Amino acid sequence: MRPLPLLLFLGFLPSVASAVALPRFPGPHARPRRGVGAAGAVRGYDYETRYFRQRLDHFSFREAEEGEGFFEQRYLVGRAGEWAGAGGPIFFYCGNEGDIAWFAANSGLVWEAAPRFAALVVFAEHRYYGESMPFGSKEKAYNNSKSLAFLTAEQAIADYAVLLTNLKRNLSSDGSPVVLFGGSYGGMLAAWMRLKYPHISVGAVASSAPILQFEDIVPSTIFYDLVSNDFKRESLSCFQTIKESWKALEDQGNGQDGLLKLSKTFHLCQTLKTTGELSDWLSSAYSYLAMVDYPIPSEFLMPLPANPIKEVCRNIDNQLDGTSNLERIYAGVNIYYNYTGTVDCFDLNDDPHGMGGWDWQACTEMVMPMSYSEDMSMFPTYKFDYSSYGEDCINSFGVRPRPQWITTEFGGHNISLVLERFGSNIIFFNGLLDPWSGGGVLKNISDSIVAIVAPLGAHHIDLRPATKEDPGWLVSLRESELDIISGWLSDYYGARGALFQRGAGSPRDSAAS
Amino acid sequence: MRPLPLLLFLGFLPSVASAVALPRFPGPHARPRRGVGAAGAVRGYDYETRYFRQRLDHFSFREAEEGEGFFEQRYLVGRAGEWAGAGGPIFFYCGNEGDIAWFAANSGLVWEAAPRFAALVVFAEHRYYGESMPFGSKEKAYNNSKSLAFLTAEQAIADYAVLLTNLKRNLSSDGSPVVLFGGSYGGMLAAWMRLKYPHISVGAVASSAPILQFEDIVPSTIFYDLVSNDFKRESLSCFQTIKESWKALEDQGNGQDGLLKLSKTFHLCQTLKTTGELSDWLSSAYSYLAMVDYPIPSEFLMPLPANPIKEVCRNIDNQLDGTSNLERIYAGVNIYYNYTGTVDCFDLNDDPHGMGGWDWQACTEMVMPMSYSEDMSMFPTYKFDYSSYGEDCINSFGVRPRPQWITTEFGGHNISLVLERFGSNIIFFNGLLDPWSGGGVLKNISDSIVAIVAPLGAHHIDLRPATKEDPGWLVSLRESELDIISGWLSDYYGARGALFQRGAGSPRDSAAS
Repeated sequence: MRPLPLLLFLGFLPSVASAVALPRFPGPHARPRRGVGAAGAVRGYDYETRYFRQRLDHFSFREAEEGEGFFEQRYLVGRAGEWAGAGGPIFFYCGNEGDIAWFAANSGLVWEAAPRFAALVVFAEHRYYGESMPFGSKEKAYNNSKSLAFLTAEQAIADYAVLLTNLKRNLSSDGSPVVLFGGSYGGMLAAWMRLKYPHISVGAVASSAPILQFEDIVPSTIFYDLVSNDFKRESLSCFQTIKESWKALEDQGNGQDGLLKLSKTFHLCQTLKTTGELSDWLSSAYSYLAMVDYPIPSEFLMPLPANPIKEVCRNIDNQLDGTSNLERIYAGVNIYYNYTGTVDCFDLNDDPHGMGGWDWQACTEMVMPMSYSEDMSMFPTYKFDYSSYGEDCINSFGVRPRPQWITTEFGGHNISLVLERFGSNIIFFNGLLDPWSGGGVLKNISDSIVAIVAPLGAHHIDLRPATKEDPGWLVSLRESELDIISGWLSDYYGARGALFQRGAGSPRDSAAS
Repeated sequence: MRPLPLLLFLGFLPSVASAVALPRFPGPHARPRRGVGAAGAVRGYDYETRYFRQRLDHFSFREAEEGEGFFEQRYLVGRAGEWAGAGGPIFFYCGNEGDIAWFAANSGLVWEAAPRFAALVVFAEHRYYGESMPFGSKEKAYNNSKSLAFLTAEQAIADYAVLLTNLKRNLSSDGSPVVLFGGSYGGMLAAWMRLKYPHISVGAVASSAPILQFEDIVPSTIFYDLVSNDFKRESLSCFQTIKESWKALEDQGNGQDGLLKLSKTFHLCQTLKTTGELSDWLSSAYSYLAMVDYPIPSEFLMPLPANPIKEVCRNIDNQLDGTSNLERIYAGVNIYYNYTGTVDCFDLNDDPHGMGGWDWQACTEMVMPMSYSEDMSMFPTYKFDYSSYGEDCINSFGVRPRPQWITTEFGGHNISLVLERFGSNIIFFNGLLDPWSGGGVLKNISDSIVAIVAPLGAHHIDLRPATKEDPGWLVSLRESELDIISGWLSDYYGARGALFQRGAGSPRDSAAS
């Protein structure tokens, strides 16, 4: 097994001409890079931190070395004081690719809705992230492809199933209905878990979950087309400036002292080694801006004003005549990377959290093809290529991607037809400003697998903590979600509830019923 | 990793007083032991044997040693000449714990029904059985717990999902509706696959699939109570003779030259080492007799007459006055083990096929608690004990069972309520003479998850090849199953079919629809 060079950002490939910067879910790597620490706050939600001894590999029975076959999964338990007690609902957040405390802090809906249903709140951390490290430490867990082997969505969902089963048993609360929540990749997990483990939950809120962003189910250009569109709708000239900037950047970079000049223009701490580094840094900013283009100020990824793309484009557009294209671009992204104005210079390779987990997942099963289209996009044309993508993964992790595995395991093609009579009780939320909505479920599949679409919403805005500035449509769609959840619970506790109780006591009833 | 002593029959434990003979699905170990070779016949069903390079571990991304990470899965393809061609239905049998050719020969319904629907027939072999051996040989695959690690239901179902996905692609027939079939353990796989991979099939026929035979969902005594009842309904005195035989057997065994005398009474080739060996041999006969208590002659496990329990009981009952209890028992089981009259002596440890696969599965995830009840059963009282069961597994395989894993992974508790609005298109067939019906789904769960129950049927009799002697109720219930399948296919090809076609061509349609 070859040693694994830990990549900080797989998207940081040599050149935009040869590869596209892979958008990432807003994980920890997207957190403030310098001088800003607010994202870790827990917003006053009280919880107890617990750990559960979890099996590393649910799907084989090889007896592992003592200890190595298990790891401690962290989970947070809150609203215990307001819980209905045994049999009461459990709101369970399916942790995604980062520290679970950060998702807990940014998923206010779960906390705020729980008391209305007297629900217990549980946030479970995803294996290989935060503190939930196999092999005793992050260093060992991320050591090589052998240690990373069990970082998969299927194993993570099985973790949640086992954790919930045990938790309910320990609470003497086997009858508790569980409502799953998740945003982004966590939303994919929530939806998939509802489909794969219907006996574990009564429903799932899958927010901004791009479960269709695989193979050719949606066009590979859709993500960046939507990013581009978010800029175009604010300002055509802003869109045009960005579209023209890539050539300007290459031209300057290829000129004499080009990389040095570029580094100065963009106030970088170190001199660029390639123009690709800068292109990726810019692409990332645009992508994340599109994800968090909220109508209210936020600190989810970075401290940002309301409608940040509008602000970025204002900075790009409103420069003195004669300001160069690249100077405008710098003025724009400065809003994203330095809204607080405290950054002296930018470190493109600064990843204080050193998370490589999503890169591994993207190189194994989470293969989401991403291209830049020629017409619709403000990015330089690029066509996703499975073969070169696969080679990058072999070089980076010594692992070969399985691009068709996710659709084999979880489906996706013709999803509405497959699920129309199969499955129930899933809310798919999407905000259309969010580029991940391109891979989302945007129409109702059945009476109980429903799509809630917010034309002016961005990445899982429904889950964010309520604020006084929330627009009416946001308040209203959150109420719709809670109404649906309320229906799931009433349904469970109603005619069904009685039967569940009987079934628990009398096995033959349940076998024969 | 300690070397693995290959067990021939886990049920062969020291004494019936300390453990119950675990009933097994009628796998190859239940095939004729001596002088009878008809079970391997293919009954004139023509098929092509093919092999598919299958991944050993679907759920981790550890790069295995070259070659070891894959194995050749055998599958049989038939009715190709009568297939409708691209887009036509595929009838897919989910292989169980044995040689797939044997299941193909004994699942006539699949072959006989296929031409009516112009369906292609595929029988896929279960990993670690027949020719589908990881690591290049059965010896290596069964070497130890490390090599056996990937012999699980989840991996087998994933094999089927991957095989089907690839097969359809290679046939340029992505739109083909797949109907899953399976009997016994294969029926469990078919049902679970329909639930876990709804995008891969349009429905499943799960015949005699005891998916509820886990934990406390059904009483642990139910299997042997049903075996006992099959004897009692034929003859109360027969039941009573068997019930009294265990003590007689122990008494004689504990007397002077007891084991020698017993060995002579039962015409054994070798002298018994313990009475438990004989008890298990007898228990197995009764269990298998109950499973194959068909109203017509059969050669599924052994060549047997119609209504074999009636014949066994006739032999037990109709002896001269003064015939001892054990001589009666011998006369009875002789019907089972030696109906053709060609056996000179019986070899209790003769397992020509040397299958240990199901024992491994029973020692890992397929933990089906089995007890002998005091009142209802003709067996000596025994209460299943997780702890001693687990110790046996550690001693035999170096592996610890996970008795709660199957219900965590696949559900089972309150199944009708969980699935009432979740899932669709499953037929659960059960014959009430079959002791496995105790763990089966016996009532409709919803409009499309239906139970077909044959009061006079035994183990997956519906799947067996049609014969001229089939009773009316059997002909009629097979027609019911085909009617339901026909409905699934019409449904698929009807309004849905058109949409499926459109979805395939236009990704945005399917994303948005």
